[in-house]
Amino acid sequence: MSEERFDVAAGNGLLDRRLFLKAGAAGGAMLLTATAAGVEREQWMKVPGGPMSDNGAPSAHESHVKRIAIASQPGTTGTGVSRTPLEYLDGVITPSRLHFERHHSGIPDINPQQHRLVIHGMVDRALSFNLDALARYPMVSRIQFLECSGNSGASIAPEPVQQSCGTIHGLVAASEWGGVPLSVLLDEAGLKHGAKWIVADGADSVVMSRSVPLDKIMDDAIVALYQNGERLRPANGYPMRLFLPGWEGNASVKWLRTIKIMDRPAMSKDETSKYSDLNDEGIATLFTFPMGVKSVITSPSHGMTMGPAGTYQVSGIAWSGSGKIRRVEVSADGGQSWADAALDEHVLSKCLTRFRSAWQWDGGPAVIMSRATDETGSVQPTRVQVLEGRANGAFYHYNGIQAWAVSENGGVNNVYA
Amino acid sequence: MSEERFDVAAGNGLLDRRLFLKAGAAGGAMLLTATAAGVEREQWMKVPGGPMSDNGAPSAHESHVKRIAIASQPGTTGTGVSRTPLEYLDGVITPSRLHFERHHSGIPDINPQQHRLVIHGMVDRALSFNLDALARYPMVSRIQFLECSGNSGASIAPEPVQQSCGTIHGLVAASEWGGVPLSVLLDEAGLKHGAKWIVADGADSVVMSRSVPLDKIMDDAIVALYQNGERLRPANGYPMRLFLPGWEGNASVKWLRTIKIMDRPAMSKDETSKYSDLNDEGIATLFTFPMGVKSVITSPSHGMTMGPAGTYQVSGIAWSGSGKIRRVEVSADGGQSWADAALDEHVLSKCLTRFRSAWQWDGGPAVIMSRATDETGSVQPTRVQVLEGRANGAFYHYNGIQAWAVSENGGVNNVYA
Repeated sequence: MSEERFDVAAGNGLLDRRLFLKAGAAGGAMLLTATAAGVEREQWMKVPGGPMSDNGAPSAHESHVKRIAIASQPGTTGTGVSRTPLEYLDGVITPSRLHFERHHSGIPDINPQQHRLVIHGMVDRALSFNLDALARYPMVSRIQFLECSGNSGASIAPEPVQQSCGTIHGLVAASEWGGVPLSVLLDEAGLKHGAKWIVADGADSVVMSRSVPLDKIMDDAIVALYQNGERLRPANGYPMRLFLPGWEGNASVKWLRTIKIMDRPAMSKDETSKYSDLNDEGIATLFTFPMGVKSVITSPSHGMTMGPAGTYQVSGIAWSGSGKIRRVEVSADGGQSWADAALDEHVLSKCLTRFRSAWQWDGGPAVIMSRATDETGSVQPTRVQVLEGRANGAFYHYNGIQAWAVSENGGVNNVYA
Repeated sequence: MSEERFDVAAGNGLLDRRLFLKAGAAGGAMLLTATAAGVEREQWMKVPGGPMSDNGAPSAHESHVKRIAIASQPGTTGTGVSRTPLEYLDGVITPSRLHFERHHSGIPDINPQQHRLVIHGMVDRALSFNLDALARYPMVSRIQFLECSGNSGASIAPEPVQQSCGTIHGLVAASEWGGVPLSVLLDEAGLKHGAKWIVADGADSVVMSRSVPLDKIMDDAIVALYQNGERLRPANGYPMRLFLPGWEGNASVKWLRTIKIMDRPAMSKDETSKYSDLNDEGIATLFTFPMGVKSVITSPSHGMTMGPAGTYQVSGIAWSGSGKIRRVEVSADGGQSWADAALDEHVLSKCLTRFRSAWQWDGGPAVIMSRATDETGSVQPTRVQVLEGRANGAFYHYNGIQAWAVSENGGVNNVYA
């Protein structure tokens, strides 16, 4: 079987997308002939198994799958980031325990019975909601991504950092977010003529604060109460957060406490000193909310080691703040030629989409990369294109193509290509 | 605002579905006027918050949200069930920590490096796969439900049991399941002429064993390696399980160890002494795999207490083993009249679908119920219809309509209606 030949879709062994979905795409080299080992009972079959539990946990053999690269500001424990270990995950949903964190003053220990959401400012009547009140409103749930605008910022470094996929790109995750459309609550409060922005404040001790145009709020913003079926976890805003599909994560204010309706943005410290984009003429652009079209190969990626030459699955995630992913292409020759990847069945708007390609690795050096296109026609740019016109050190909104170099010894490294 | 009138879609206060999606559906009675409380800083805003962590956990205030009704056979700790607490969840995804369990001899402590999947029987070549070998094959991921065929079996009792929604109906959950299509592996092994069934064995100490028609296997069966983005958890088959979309959970053999290709079913103990459907003439039907169209209102449900009269969200889940949910109707007058519920955005095949209705509760007695229709046109039956022709005690495949009675004091109880 290892002698079989496959139709090639692009250079250096990328197989046709249709063929990938058929049998036989994987090489026989990795198959073991069934032996008596398949019949003998392993040790764990000789004793009754472990008990049921009220709160299930992963296998002890998976203890290496955890948030990575926890980095807090000096002298603090909760001001910084932890990242999703993308290289160990598959599919689209991110387990809540592994959803990346970005806090500006740690995780407040909020008593949900005391917490209130206050809507005030340019409204006919200021309103205050507790959890019981919100529970009586119509809710919605959708599976969507959340990405920190600082994600992948390490890719602006002059030399490629040799870190794992999650360490570089793990400030993105996808969850089912459920809650009350904010438009419903604002209609209840009654918007005054001239209302154009809201400013949302969090209940953390630094009062993280962001302004958001009212158009976005009335379109698809929710006050999220549930994540992946259960109540939000503290690191993701328990008991409630703003959720703005497709927009930079920072604007989806966690531990949401007040929403003030205004006729202009608040120009809070979190949207002026940070989360703005400086160009090479010293001009900063504010309020660049939607996250660009992007993709990254999660397997193989830095830190993994290839087995023997043969057919491999190349797999990764793609997403866009502007809607659905239309297409992902994969290259195995550093971008000289590209083949369409297969997309997993559910291609949802403003959500991660899993892509896969079959690759017949010949055992030699190769540079693999992915390029996403969204339904608006936007194509993921190269690193050079992303950095053009940027100030030194401007790392927000980086969505350039990621390249991984596979070496003859099977090692995988980060390269600029 | 509490004086507003709404268009009524069905008896006893069910509001029009379109109106539900608009502003103002919720009554003003539950709104609190904003006060100084919205401006004063709560205690948790006066100190830096807690640190980041490598493995996030739910809030301590949510410790009541756990698997419920753990019931093991006398003298055992892992032979029985635990259930998903549906009444505390929203949306579609079930957190893996809360996915119900059904074990026949506990959870085997499997070393993934030693585990093998062997395919043998009527094949051209018997094959053995370790995890590394499987990882090189094309994978797929889909969000789908898994339901134990014994789910809701308590509903055959002569008198309605007064238990929570999850205790009665919590042997169902939805996850993103990712893995290798079994058809790919069988093509690799090569099927011999006359092959019609497979029999799948688990690596638990009782070797749970089920036969499955080859047609289903080649259609959409996978060897699942991932659940909700991460590796399967031990309680759900780590490191691999069979997953058969829409079919009774028991056939999706956990800790999958061998697949034998046969020309007939194996008639294993698990498909003859159990998981068969006995009728009132003493005849048992075997191999009734697809789960019927079904729904249940999760909120309000038994054990909850209503607040003051006014508008409430009625919310629940619907699913069918035959495809997508087309429609869910809700009644607030014990089935005399019905109104279409709103369905959450993602209506996926063989998956849970979240439905919601707005209900203007007048504070008096009411009986609420839901009725699902799937894309094949099948309509969820009443309890009487389900039990017709069944033997006493035959509790598998119960998909009758669930009714909850709301009393004047706001209590909610299980009733047959």
